[in-house]
Amino acid sequence: MDNFDYLKNIDGEMWFVENDRDNLKVAYRIRDIISSVKSPFQQIDIIDTYDFGRCLVLDGVMQTNEMDGYIYNEMISHVPLVTHPSPKDVLIIGGGDCGAASEITKYRDLQKIDVVEIDELVVKECIKHIPSVAGNAPHDKRVNFIFDDGIEFVRNRREMYDVIIIDSSDPVGPAEDLFSEKFYIDAKNCLRPDGILVCQSESPIFYKDILQRTYGFLCNHFSIVRTYKAVVPSYPGGFWSFTIASQKYDPLNADTERLAKNTKYINEEIFKSSFNLPNFMKEMLELE
Amino acid sequence: MDNFDYLKNIDGEMWFVENDRDNLKVAYRIRDIISSVKSPFQQIDIIDTYDFGRCLVLDGVMQTNEMDGYIYNEMISHVPLVTHPSPKDVLIIGGGDCGAASEITKYRDLQKIDVVEIDELVVKECIKHIPSVAGNAPHDKRVNFIFDDGIEFVRNRREMYDVIIIDSSDPVGPAEDLFSEKFYIDAKNCLRPDGILVCQSESPIFYKDILQRTYGFLCNHFSIVRTYKAVVPSYPGGFWSFTIASQKYDPLNADTERLAKNTKYINEEIFKSSFNLPNFMKEMLELE
Repeated sequence: MDNFDYLKNIDGEMWFVENDRDNLKVAYRIRDIISSVKSPFQQIDIIDTYDFGRCLVLDGVMQTNEMDGYIYNEMISHVPLVTHPSPKDVLIIGGGDCGAASEITKYRDLQKIDVVEIDELVVKECIKHIPSVAGNAPHDKRVNFIFDDGIEFVRNRREMYDVIIIDSSDPVGPAEDLFSEKFYIDAKNCLRPDGILVCQSESPIFYKDILQRTYGFLCNHFSIVRTYKAVVPSYPGGFWSFTIASQKYDPLNADTERLAKNTKYINEEIFKSSFNLPNFMKEMLELE
Repeated sequence: MDNFDYLKNIDGEMWFVENDRDNLKVAYRIRDIISSVKSPFQQIDIIDTYDFGRCLVLDGVMQTNEMDGYIYNEMISHVPLVTHPSPKDVLIIGGGDCGAASEITKYRDLQKIDVVEIDELVVKECIKHIPSVAGNAPHDKRVNFIFDDGIEFVRNRREMYDVIIIDSSDPVGPAEDLFSEKFYIDAKNCLRPDGILVCQSESPIFYKDILQRTYGFLCNHFSIVRTYKAVVPSYPGGFWSFTIASQKYDPLNADTERLAKNTKYINEEIFKSSFNLPNFMKEMLELE
């Protein structure tokens, strides 16, 4: 990647231009570049945009932001946490922005939240510069940050979890192997027999093949697999998918009254209806 | 507007850059400019993009396209058509792409579909260059095109309708007055007592004030008013709202089995769950 080719001065205004797609580019006008550091894994920028507030940008791609970051973080966290009737131990792979961990701390009965993030600098930058996204996680004693490769971590399993959340960036760069079948098998080996795994499974519009492959891999290893949807305005096309898998618990039978109350996007109706898929997605997943 | 400042040659590639927002721009790589004409009302371009196929662009703003145009058109059409138990006469204000009218022709019991579009050239261009969006409407004898100002048309009411669909572009330029309270009052006067009105009420993210105002206006004149949502990837942020209003029929009690079967986005579950709003929208509309 050309250094900083995604930060441009256009007619005297600063813009962040997402360059990761060949045929569609989204440009955000910037108030300020808050921080810009290079880790052993990636370029990490915190920028302050007019429409989305402060944003975490990894290798030129928007990851999360103050305006709509909560939508993604709520949807990837609360759905598995409520589907499991009594989760105690949670593992998050990725999730360096701390947003998913922060949502999970809203469940008081949990005992442990392990966050395995490959890039310590992402966590430091987010805690320092986007505290509204990082939320309560850095201050909750149940949250343990483990700076390690998620692939290695689940391969060398030491502990068992009730819920594993795969909160990865796109399947290029550091996160590529987090979309492999081998990784899902290793992750499953870290789940208790009634455990639940969830992952972000990309855009059903622009990454149809990734969603189909992820759904297929999980169906190979779990008896209950369901894809659900949300709208994340700062992701390309806004339409995003998540896929949840378990040998025992079906999210359609979840006791949604257990849902944490202090949320901005998800509520009981949104939880249930996120599993209602439009026809084109049902066809894509061969659900009809 | 500077002529064609939204069509740019960047490093030898042609791009369509939406310039209507100050702080967020979306750029689509173009295969070809199919047609470019100026009407008395606006600049009309049909462009062929890599990601979204052929697109209708009015004054530099994306209106509809081959890839996701059906989502918007299905959601603005089928919801009122199914909420009303026995619609016979439908009025569409705007809708020059013919997509909404085309969806409505899927209901065989309808007698008349009047499309009041201010700009005849939009209809001609869409029928000629984007027939997959224009669909069946130009060939269905129940569809009447009336090239007139929708504001004037409802003010000088001659007929009564069961369903009125306000399928407008954004509230700038020709469509501005289609978001006024006076217009909704005039439109209501063209509805039978048990009639239903629906309008696109913009993005709850980027046009929160428009949605709130539209919802408020309709609440002033109808006893049942509900906002519903859909994801339209080619609209900014992807998150879109519609608002439906009636004195008699509540969409939550609709007989969704009446829904046309040959759709790509909407189905019975999507119909019902489109009324489940995230917490931030409930707050916005003071629904809690």
